[in-house]
Amino acid sequence: MKVEHYSRTAAEPVEGVPGVTVRWVIGEKDDAPNFAMRIFEIEPGHSTPYHQHDWEHEVLVLDGEGVVRQEGGELRIRDGSVVFVPGMEMHQFANRGESVLRFVCLVPI
Amino acid sequence: MKVEHYSRTAAEPVEGVPGVTVRWVIGEKDDAPNFAMRIFEIEPGHSTPYHQHDWEHEVLVLDGEGVVRQEGGELRIRDGSVVFVPGMEMHQFANRGESVLRFVCLVPI
Repeated sequence: MKVEHYSRTAAEPVEGVPGVTVRWVIGEKDDAPNFAMRIFEIEPGHSTPYHQHDWEHEVLVLDGEGVVRQEGGELRIRDGSVVFVPGMEMHQFANRGESVLRFVCLVPI
Repeated sequence: MKVEHYSRTAAEPVEGVPGVTVRWVIGEKDDAPNFAMRIFEIEPGHSTPYHQHDWEHEVLVLDGEGVVRQEGGELRIRDGSVVFVPGMEMHQFANRGESVLRFVCLVPI
């Protein structure tokens, strides 16, 4: 068993995506067999790329305010928002608040 | 894509486990292919069973204070604590604080 505060895992910059960091808090290094847990932090005014891929995201927003963009529009998110992005759907997370937008995001391994 | 506050999903009692509820916020009903997201709430003085099973847990504590019990002892958890429980490890989550212990817990489907 591993028990550790998320802040003990380094926040790594995301290449080519200014204002966004990721902490891989549970993953292959822990011998997780099926899925990985990451914590993202997006600075005010910044966002992840608008993109798609063949794996899903399961997200819970922890702090801050923003939007998730999908084909056809945007939906507001805040602490406690749950987001399920199926594989191959276009998506983007954007901070529209004045503090960090922090969320936990799980992906299959 | 699904975007919904976690509180929109009903908190269901856990059979045989007083003081504990679970919300299945992402799962098979959403066509999630690999893993499910649940939010647990444990009332003060209550706990989940001390048990084991062949699948893993990936947990992030959202609110409250407590311990996770494993073979050989207990470790303290609070908001921001990350817990990885590999398959077949004995484990129990107990609320030792004065408010609800709330955590998100993911399991394979």
